[in-house]
Amino acid sequence: MPPPIWLMRQAGRYLPEYRRVRERAGGFLDLCYDPALAAEVTLQPITRFGFDAAILFSDILIVPHALGCDVRFDEGHGPRLEPVRERADIERLSDGIGDRAAPIFETVARVADALPSDTALIGFAGAPWTVATYMVEGGTSRDFAATKLWAFNDPDGFQRLIDKLVAATGDYLIAQVAAGAEVLQLFDSWAGALPESGFERWCIAPTRALVKRLKTACPEVPIIGFPRGAGPMMTRYAAATGVDAVSLDSAVSAAWAVDALQAQWTLQGNLDPLYLVAGGRAMTEAATAVLDTLGHGPMIFNLGHGVVPQTPPEHVAALVETVRGWRPAGASR
Amino acid sequence: MPPPIWLMRQAGRYLPEYRRVRERAGGFLDLCYDPALAAEVTLQPITRFGFDAAILFSDILIVPHALGCDVRFDEGHGPRLEPVRERADIERLSDGIGDRAAPIFETVARVADALPSDTALIGFAGAPWTVATYMVEGGTSRDFAATKLWAFNDPDGFQRLIDKLVAATGDYLIAQVAAGAEVLQLFDSWAGALPESGFERWCIAPTRALVKRLKTACPEVPIIGFPRGAGPMMTRYAAATGVDAVSLDSAVSAAWAVDALQAQWTLQGNLDPLYLVAGGRAMTEAATAVLDTLGHGPMIFNLGHGVVPQTPPEHVAALVETVRGWRPAGASR
Repeated sequence: MPPPIWLMRQAGRYLPEYRRVRERAGGFLDLCYDPALAAEVTLQPITRFGFDAAILFSDILIVPHALGCDVRFDEGHGPRLEPVRERADIERLSDGIGDRAAPIFETVARVADALPSDTALIGFAGAPWTVATYMVEGGTSRDFAATKLWAFNDPDGFQRLIDKLVAATGDYLIAQVAAGAEVLQLFDSWAGALPESGFERWCIAPTRALVKRLKTACPEVPIIGFPRGAGPMMTRYAAATGVDAVSLDSAVSAAWAVDALQAQWTLQGNLDPLYLVAGGRAMTEAATAVLDTLGHGPMIFNLGHGVVPQTPPEHVAALVETVRGWRPAGASR
Repeated sequence: MPPPIWLMRQAGRYLPEYRRVRERAGGFLDLCYDPALAAEVTLQPITRFGFDAAILFSDILIVPHALGCDVRFDEGHGPRLEPVRERADIERLSDGIGDRAAPIFETVARVADALPSDTALIGFAGAPWTVATYMVEGGTSRDFAATKLWAFNDPDGFQRLIDKLVAATGDYLIAQVAAGAEVLQLFDSWAGALPESGFERWCIAPTRALVKRLKTACPEVPIIGFPRGAGPMMTRYAAATGVDAVSLDSAVSAAWAVDALQAQWTLQGNLDPLYLVAGGRAMTEAATAVLDTLGHGPMIFNLGHGVVPQTPPEHVAALVETVRGWRPAGASR
């Protein structure tokens, strides 16, 4: 049997039907907070490609926004946030996410109602470390200097921000499950920016705390962890956090991951998204190589990172066909 | 015995004496091509901190520049290059580096003359893949879309660019050795952007070809490879390329690298450069952790990436003191 397939950022700018809804919605956050439109764009790639899972259309910065942080998405720029740089800035944030994320849960409920019964609904959030980097840097960053300096110089102060995010993200994900999410993914997109000691404290420990709470509240919901760029530290991440599956970025050797992880964890990944832009034989061969390596054990086919805007939708259709047509060879592995 | 120590980008903007020379030189490339001034800045961190090695002050973009590519370093921006996007663009480049890099070799000779005999002189170049990304993207990039698309869609065409870089980089490094370089480092800063299949063809294969030529021309010169972001693929890189030492970025688990690599390869690294900005106890503890992990086998103390401009020079002095004062504990490992 071929593995299930969905793609990170499968709902997005590469789809003309998404761009039409986006124009109607106004800003990007307006779209996230409009349950009718957000549900519509969540469902678009299911309708078009028949993926095995839908992932809630939303953003990892909903949690800081719900905590009272000023978050803006200006056209042509990355996100911009009012920076949180010291303990006093943390005190100014709300105690919890309150009702502000309610439209997100409404979106989840609408998608759950509309989805075919054999299509999974994936909820998600950013992992505390990654969300913290956006809050501290005030946006994206190349070197994460402000975040690291805070974490290195005042670990107890930075811990308060992380603790706040663990609590808020737990509330946020549990509410997504209550609304109908069947699987959860934690995006730790900047895990690879952490040195080993920081990885333990700022990636693994908060993720473990979050997973523990989720496993108590909703033990039946599988959790996919995505510690992007963590390389060989993924084994420690998988063993220590309690996630059920590990999403591999494209730079991770799939063969290595099979040996290091697949006996215990489902592996998700890890085609380079640029192959979806290239299309043709290059894409088919690369996708088949991923399948031949990861597909003999528990696997979810995905990319190593999100679909990029310049992706031709017909390449996505061809990829789905390649994956659906793949069969494991003989009895190897 | 404590390991030898030098730091990537140890000569640079964080030093007031560097900033004074830089002002006299004019542009950044003017400084690289001025043997008197480039030798002076190469020696500055040796004079100030007594590092065990000096690394030639230069840039990985000297090779494309010597090949006739227009390269500019505008203040406040990354480098900008005239993009090489197709086979015809390759044809327009020079056949070899010609005399244009001669001032670089003159710098090496001057530094070799001036250095204390117990201080090693390290020459360097960018690895072909990394230099190619700058040439194809026309500068730095977040997703390397143009480079990957070329490599994926027209691998034979892209191979010509890589082959040209292998040849030119070989000439360039052999000339550095002839001028007095005693060790060579290959910076593959964007190795981590490659998926597994591309890593084999575009990082490992050209590096292997380059190392083979260097080992024929100057077998006594140790080669340090720095496949930044390669994670678990570093083992394959080390085994397949023929390098003598592997430089670890900060995201690599040092403990993993000890088990995977240190029996056969000297390991260099891998303190997070932001610890040098933080200073104090955080830096000392982190440096000691690196030493305690890597220091029981063949090791060169270094950072996981270059010194950042906001680094206080007194923190560097304190780091050197920490490393020089470290002793391996008992007979463990």
